[in-house]
Amino acid sequence: MPVRYVPPVPEALLPVPGITLGATAAHIKNWDRNDVLLVVCDPGTVAAGVFTRNRFCAAPVTVCRRHLDASGRMRALVVNAGNANAGTGERGIADAATTAAAVASMLGCAMQEVLPWSTGVIMEPLPVDRLVAALPAARAAARSDGWFDAARAIMTTDTVPKGASRRVTIDGVPVTVTGIAKGSGMIHPDMATMLAFVATDAPVERALLSSIVKEAADVSFNRATVDGDTSTNDSFVVAATGQARIAPIARTDDPRLPALSGAIEAVAVELAQAIVRDGEGATKFIAIRVEGGRSVDECRKVAFGIAHSPLVKTAFFASDPNLGRIVCAIGNAGPADLDPAGVSFWLDDVLVVDRGGRSPGYREEDGQRVMKEDEITVRVDLGRASGAGSAQATVWTCDFSHDYVSINADYRS
Amino acid sequence: MPVRYVPPVPEALLPVPGITLGATAAHIKNWDRNDVLLVVCDPGTVAAGVFTRNRFCAAPVTVCRRHLDASGRMRALVVNAGNANAGTGERGIADAATTAAAVASMLGCAMQEVLPWSTGVIMEPLPVDRLVAALPAARAAARSDGWFDAARAIMTTDTVPKGASRRVTIDGVPVTVTGIAKGSGMIHPDMATMLAFVATDAPVERALLSSIVKEAADVSFNRATVDGDTSTNDSFVVAATGQARIAPIARTDDPRLPALSGAIEAVAVELAQAIVRDGEGATKFIAIRVEGGRSVDECRKVAFGIAHSPLVKTAFFASDPNLGRIVCAIGNAGPADLDPAGVSFWLDDVLVVDRGGRSPGYREEDGQRVMKEDEITVRVDLGRASGAGSAQATVWTCDFSHDYVSINADYRS
Repeated sequence: MPVRYVPPVPEALLPVPGITLGATAAHIKNWDRNDVLLVVCDPGTVAAGVFTRNRFCAAPVTVCRRHLDASGRMRALVVNAGNANAGTGERGIADAATTAAAVASMLGCAMQEVLPWSTGVIMEPLPVDRLVAALPAARAAARSDGWFDAARAIMTTDTVPKGASRRVTIDGVPVTVTGIAKGSGMIHPDMATMLAFVATDAPVERALLSSIVKEAADVSFNRATVDGDTSTNDSFVVAATGQARIAPIARTDDPRLPALSGAIEAVAVELAQAIVRDGEGATKFIAIRVEGGRSVDECRKVAFGIAHSPLVKTAFFASDPNLGRIVCAIGNAGPADLDPAGVSFWLDDVLVVDRGGRSPGYREEDGQRVMKEDEITVRVDLGRASGAGSAQATVWTCDFSHDYVSINADYRS
Repeated sequence: MPVRYVPPVPEALLPVPGITLGATAAHIKNWDRNDVLLVVCDPGTVAAGVFTRNRFCAAPVTVCRRHLDASGRMRALVVNAGNANAGTGERGIADAATTAAAVASMLGCAMQEVLPWSTGVIMEPLPVDRLVAALPAARAAARSDGWFDAARAIMTTDTVPKGASRRVTIDGVPVTVTGIAKGSGMIHPDMATMLAFVATDAPVERALLSSIVKEAADVSFNRATVDGDTSTNDSFVVAATGQARIAPIARTDDPRLPALSGAIEAVAVELAQAIVRDGEGATKFIAIRVEGGRSVDECRKVAFGIAHSPLVKTAFFASDPNLGRIVCAIGNAGPADLDPAGVSFWLDDVLVVDRGGRSPGYREEDGQRVMKEDEITVRVDLGRASGAGSAQATVWTCDFSHDYVSINADYRS
């Protein structure tokens, strides 16, 4: 059960003019469910994406980057679950290219306009024949209202499908943004075993779309961490079909841009939080906000230091206000010249540490009360900057439970 | 049950002339066992140490550093288990100083010659009155063969006491090195919730002892990690009583030095490995050796990247050769310009990844066979350097089990 995340009903995921989605079962693993998704975009669609920084990036990531760089246009996305096609060397690249070529042949487009994605077990050869054989069925299933089924087809250890929609009015015309994502473990910025695809019918110039995607990733997926492992396959792509009847948005100073980029960011944030809320074995959703730093970078470092500490995460699982573990994590991740005597932190509204020491007013029952919640905010003031201009950063994580171990000890079986 | 670690029998821990040790129960926590240790050193003993780099270092660490810097002489070490006196601000410093002063008054020495150590829960005030009241009983219990009882008194979540001895002959005279340590969680270099005290009767000049301690820590405790958290209290001190009847060892080129420093390092390595073998919930001991790097630093970074990945650690717990997770961890921790096509790795003698891809000869049953062992070596070749001069680094870790979560979710209760 994800923490305070109710998956969307199918009707909540609004169709995006110019996009159809079809899922089918290729039996990539021994699953009795759909595991292949084909997203078809009308001609004229442009796309941009951000991808994992893992040095062992998967073959489909390499191929996706090449294809997006080559054209910036997108006619299809093809996703398989159950096998990541990662750590598979030259054969993996060939398999991803073969998949893209098969889709291109079926749709009559250039293979550079097809993006292949894979998610699942690493270092097993992709059963590319089964995948290619399933493509016609996926195409036949493609519908404009296929978003919900699409979200289900790309799941691996996810317990629920993840999707979100927004509708905004630009120049008097309704514009839609809909996205789906998968991911629940190996989740860490840049960007997690996480696949997220968001589409809009707004007409957006390709270069501008690239910066929209980067900014949306920074405020969403790059703030989410489950276990600190950045996967080989993480990918976030935004496609714009251009079918909404408004003039193209091409410049960063276009007054219509905030409405559109805000909707895309809202969808990305909802998807990123859904991934953390559905983190493997998660029983709590924890927001960690670090402020009073000299730079965003040092705030982020401390926030992720807290978020990644197994001792902190198990204390949250136990609802135990063992707050010394947070102090310890701050001390590990803090800058070398951090003065502990300036550091304070709060659990929700409860001041726990006041400038380096236990707050005189802190009572264990107050900490206990907050720790029992299933959604908690840890706020840390590093005390290194004064005034309104001080840096801050927020990250989201979950606790570390018995189920995390069970899920990851049994995943391949 | 620690992994392949049989705790010493009392007779195995050899007395060190000039050192007596006494333990008693101060009931710092609600434990029905000894929790206070007093080590008394004869006049003339010198000591040097290395301490945690956590910015929130505990009060006793601050006081220890001051005392060792002030005199370099040591007459006593006083340790309490159950309360770390960390995150306790000015009051914590006063409590640690009070403890040292009480010991000094009892022994008739300067308080700068007394080192206070604490281990246990963070951010709770130290019950210093109970600790001070217990000191006379600890002194009365002090004996030269008290090492084993001492090792037991300093335990927290340790399941077994940890100690080691070596005897070497220098100038025809037997010289003894004996040490004890505690620690099983919050373990990570620089240096873990880890306390380690090693004594020798060799006469060693103080400045030389400082470098011996640093080098010993680098090949032992700084290679050990259980969960990546560096504690607020980590301390490793070596004392030399000088009672062995040989001429003082004072220079780095003294031909007698390797025998002594080798014995100290052997004791430190045995203690450090014992801590990992007794890692919270550990069922496997894993050595990770990374070679073929351009620097020791990048090899260490990759080795710790693998050692800290919860996904890798849970796969070891499951005896699952889910080797893609190791590939993923290398890709996360590797230097930015790492070429995956140069990377190989082995599980014991089984070549798994051969220059970027799954080895053609790799069979899952071979990986499975190794993973079922309780002691495993992961060897990674980064392929970034050729010839004999390439850098390497080794770290030790353990797996991540259900018991790790249980131990850390329940620790304070």
